[in-house]
Amino acid sequence: MGPRVLLSGIDARGSGHSAGLAAACTITARLSREGGDLMSSLRPLTISIAAAAMSLSLACGGATPDGGQEAESPYAAHEVAPGEYDDYYGFSSGGHSGEVRIVGIPSMRVLKRIPVWNIDPGSGWGITNESKAMMGGKWVGDTHHVQGSYVDGTYDGKWLFVNDKANNRLARIRIDIFEVDATVEIPHTQGTHGVFPQRAPTTEWVILNSEFRTPLVNDGSGDMLDASTYGGVHTIVDAERMEVVAQVQTEVNLDLAATDYSGRYSFATSYNSEGGATISEMLASDLDYLVVFSWDNIKAALANNDYRTVDGVPILDGTEGTGLTAYIPVPKNPHGVNVSPDGNYAVVSGKVSPTASVIDITMLDDVFAGNIEPRDAVVAEPEIGLGPLHTTFDGRGNAYTSLFIDSQEVKWNIQRAIDLQANPQEGETAVVDRLDIHYQVGHTMASMAETNEADGRYLISLNKISKDRFLNVGPLKPENDQLIDISGESMVLLKDESAYIEPHDIILVRRDIIEPHVVDRVRLEEHPEAVTQSSITRDGNRVTVRLTATAPVFGLQEVEVNEGDEVTFIVTNTDEIPDLAHGFAISNYNIQMVVGPFQTKSVTFTADKPGVYWIYCTNFCHALHLEMRLRFIVRPRS
Amino acid sequence: MGPRVLLSGIDARGSGHSAGLAAACTITARLSREGGDLMSSLRPLTISIAAAAMSLSLACGGATPDGGQEAESPYAAHEVAPGEYDDYYGFSSGGHSGEVRIVGIPSMRVLKRIPVWNIDPGSGWGITNESKAMMGGKWVGDTHHVQGSYVDGTYDGKWLFVNDKANNRLARIRIDIFEVDATVEIPHTQGTHGVFPQRAPTTEWVILNSEFRTPLVNDGSGDMLDASTYGGVHTIVDAERMEVVAQVQTEVNLDLAATDYSGRYSFATSYNSEGGATISEMLASDLDYLVVFSWDNIKAALANNDYRTVDGVPILDGTEGTGLTAYIPVPKNPHGVNVSPDGNYAVVSGKVSPTASVIDITMLDDVFAGNIEPRDAVVAEPEIGLGPLHTTFDGRGNAYTSLFIDSQEVKWNIQRAIDLQANPQEGETAVVDRLDIHYQVGHTMASMAETNEADGRYLISLNKISKDRFLNVGPLKPENDQLIDISGESMVLLKDESAYIEPHDIILVRRDIIEPHVVDRVRLEEHPEAVTQSSITRDGNRVTVRLTATAPVFGLQEVEVNEGDEVTFIVTNTDEIPDLAHGFAISNYNIQMVVGPFQTKSVTFTADKPGVYWIYCTNFCHALHLEMRLRFIVRPRS
Ligand SMILES: [Cu+2]
Ligand SMILES: [Cu+2]
Repeated sequence: MGPRVLLSGIDARGSGHSAGLAAACTITARLSREGGDLMSSLRPLTISIAAAAMSLSLACGGATPDGGQEAESPYAAHEVAPGEYDDYYGFSSGGHSGEVRIVGIPSMRVLKRIPVWNIDPGSGWGITNESKAMMGGKWVGDTHHVQGSYVDGTYDGKWLFVNDKANNRLARIRIDIFEVDATVEIPHTQGTHGVFPQRAPTTEWVILNSEFRTPLVNDGSGDMLDASTYGGVHTIVDAERMEVVAQVQTEVNLDLAATDYSGRYSFATSYNSEGGATISEMLASDLDYLVVFSWDNIKAALANNDYRTVDGVPILDGTEGTGLTAYIPVPKNPHGVNVSPDGNYAVVSGKVSPTASVIDITMLDDVFAGNIEPRDAVVAEPEIGLGPLHTTFDGRGNAYTSLFIDSQEVKWNIQRAIDLQANPQEGETAVVDRLDIHYQVGHTMASMAETNEADGRYLISLNKISKDRFLNVGPLKPENDQLIDISGESMVLLKDESAYIEPHDIILVRRDIIEPHVVDRVRLEEHPEAVTQSSITRDGNRVTVRLTATAPVFGLQEVEVNEGDEVTFIVTNTDEIPDLAHGFAISNYNIQMVVGPFQTKSVTFTADKPGVYWIYCTNFCHALHLEMRLRFIVRPRS
Repeated sequence: MGPRVLLSGIDARGSGHSAGLAAACTITARLSREGGDLMSSLRPLTISIAAAAMSLSLACGGATPDGGQEAESPYAAHEVAPGEYDDYYGFSSGGHSGEVRIVGIPSMRVLKRIPVWNIDPGSGWGITNESKAMMGGKWVGDTHHVQGSYVDGTYDGKWLFVNDKANNRLARIRIDIFEVDATVEIPHTQGTHGVFPQRAPTTEWVILNSEFRTPLVNDGSGDMLDASTYGGVHTIVDAERMEVVAQVQTEVNLDLAATDYSGRYSFATSYNSEGGATISEMLASDLDYLVVFSWDNIKAALANNDYRTVDGVPILDGTEGTGLTAYIPVPKNPHGVNVSPDGNYAVVSGKVSPTASVIDITMLDDVFAGNIEPRDAVVAEPEIGLGPLHTTFDGRGNAYTSLFIDSQEVKWNIQRAIDLQANPQEGETAVVDRLDIHYQVGHTMASMAETNEADGRYLISLNKISKDRFLNVGPLKPENDQLIDISGESMVLLKDESAYIEPHDIILVRRDIIEPHVVDRVRLEEHPEAVTQSSITRDGNRVTVRLTATAPVFGLQEVEVNEGDEVTFIVTNTDEIPDLAHGFAISNYNIQMVVGPFQTKSVTFTADKPGVYWIYCTNFCHALHLEMRLRFIVRPRS
């Protein structure tokens, strides 16, 4: 029940955890390599962390050795045996891999990769004309958060939304086919990080935050080095039309995002209230903000045309005093903001403060009305451990916060924290349990925890550094996603699962919410060019080949074109049998795509190499799959 | 022990297996949609499969219902609990995903994706200058086989080799860092499918086969439609230099590959001895070939300059009667060829014949000497089931063959098959056990089975159609890799594991062979441009930024360039701490790469957008990882 290891840095392989001050000191040591003026500004932070570690360490009775060698795993009772199904769909953001992953919970199996901001030769994403249009010429991305669309505070099984922090975009995924069906570029912003859909009554808006402050109009004009002119924006996107509705401009940066359960507020943490451009500047202040956006007031401002328009986007002034925002001071460099399933509390953690701040959402009306000070809405601020990042919930009144310096999950009771804030009692704590994880946890999420149906069964700890948890696979090692049973009083580690670079966040959605929406095939007519009869047509030097694919033959045995022709292949998989996909690759022509049942995909290229090139099916489809091929004959120009 | 389900087609979701004739008939039904002349040529095949199914079905006592609902899984005893390590590194070819995967066995965890023929934004593969040079402008591929380098018949832990069937290349992966360190384009070939390294005394040569017959000089000259002029090549690559040594030209196509255990022979199956260009032509003949290549005679021909040179490559004549090859007739459209761990037998399966052919390698000298007929070397040809593809071994004299129409693994005894061939006994069979798999198995591999240290512990069944084995994730579903315990008399299914499109083959290598070679960091000086001191230098409009990355800061806080400059960033991760990687992304500039400890990666691009662009670390590295960023200032041209 008590803490086992309080602190750990990023240690050398095999050295295990180090306790207390030692780890905090590694931060100092590491920073000192860059030397100079940085050091002096960072030292106070390091010392304050170390001090907090000591006090916490004493309060909790000190550190004990790493519990790495469990005698037996309790996973067996949760095993999803051959032929059995998982209870939850996990939707995981793949970080700089640019993809979204579907993870079965509790098996932790990756059931699918959904390419979003990455080229995927396996599926043809980024190669087909259809997907190229979605990507707009940018094929890297940084997916931090995947969120589902909502109705009345729980998932409706319709869409997933996923950000791109690198190239500043939002993508929408259709849950029925688990493919991206729309994207939108977010202007006037960089570091598009937090994203959250409206939770009630339905998802009409999706909001996004800019983590990096920039000039609003970033065209090279003005003194680009003067960071005091920079700001952030809170972007509102129409979920149905996938268009930017408006942007609320702030002076501060805006990091993680959440919405409330009434459709009236959205939230953004701001870790750089200083407006700094260097790491030391960003750490100067002891208090930063939870920024609250009033949707009532934003809607009123839009209705009253109380905005300016830049590049066609309404820009609303969200600085202090405009009535659109409330700036609630919270300790130093807050990271996550999460709303409790009852809708009553927003929990914010200051990653370089050992606390969680509990904001009473029911008091926000009074904050916006000016009846109370913003800080008055903070009804609890318990000390929970070092490096608190994200908080999730079990629907039974408990919060679970990831502690990335402590490398722990900490379970604490929200009401207990509020009560102790009101009536402090010596030696009492809201902390219920601690569990070591392995090793540096970022996001954490419990089953259905971002809905009003939080069920408190499973907790996922998305750990960034797996270090020595798996066979060594070289300099770039996997991450370690850990599955934890939270159905009881104490947390129980069930399973380690290696994860490819680099999952950021995950949501766990009950199977019964998703499964009825998922289809085995699209409707043939969804693609306007669906092919039912193969053909070759020519218009000048443009050749269009319409091709059916029915196991084990393509609809044509030869296609002849001339060198230099612009060739478009439109391929329809005319098999409607579930899980019977065909691949389409042209030898030496760098073209590859996979077409699912009744799907149509197209690819356009220049036939710049004369000769005979075999087009072949790359995806197993039939006993005679290897024989499923045709000849692409390119006649030389001369 | 006995068969549970004998036959299954690719059925509709949830309809389960269908027995006997029904499944065979689905092949006819499916083909008949394309109608016409194809049908008439395919009908005999369908009928012969159906007939074989009936006889096998009777011999085995008929079909029984699908055993999909196991009461309890025996996996628990094999679980790799948190903190424990796998026993084997599995190296899996990722098919048209273009990647290689490291899978821990028996956990089945994907421990790493190694990008090879795919762009990987997560690692920067295909984005960095270093990796672009490896890919040669082609970023799709089709990896079918990963093989390890050998010494004295077992793996030496130095390299992995992987083919590209789509763009016809070979890549080499350094096992110490699990990254590609060399690639070579294979000329004069398409469908570069089978690949196998020399097994003894060490891997000096790697051989590759062309599955698709093409004109040798494929420049559009001659009658491109006349398939009788096409042929295949057996390519020899120098493993150290990664250069093509020579190509042995054949009239037939060459599919899967193997080498013997003495360094004297290599093998290729040929399923299209007909030289057909359409599916019906490819199925015309009842016998195709196992082609054997004599390395003694190839070396002699090279030494005697008995070849012509095309595009700088020695082309040897490998047609019948030249002494370089032996064409051993084997039943219809053979697919896999695998050599038993004792080095004595090559096992070939004719995928549209229900048999496995056992070729006695010790008799090949007599074949090449003309003392016996090629077919005399076939010492057994047991009936084992429908759609036999690949065979693997337990080192105890048993073979395990994947049956992709039967959806089974079949275990049979090699010596027993040979004995029964010599002395047929009514009602006797070499078959020892059958296990249903789910559903269409392609490759199968036992632990260490491609070495003389085969240990008979685990068998992997790489199944192409998972259909209803996992939560439905849309039209494109995962594959199903199944783990099977083969340590006892009967095979025991342990685990299903979902796999992303589309693993083809896998090798299972003991941990103790690989682990000592794997490093946590490269040597800093391995990259000639490794940065130890950050700097910005300009040469005309070319700007070179040398940048250190040490958690949590980059070595510079600002980089200023002019619009239109050609900018090269060279980034060295100067942290030597294991598993501490830094990411490097430039907002809105479509650039992303990850740099491991002591690694150096570079990227070159044109600064075509004026403004302030944040460069940020995309890979979690430190408590202040979010603050690890710098400004890239692009001054406008005007
Ligand atoms: Cu196909
Ligand atoms: Cu970093």
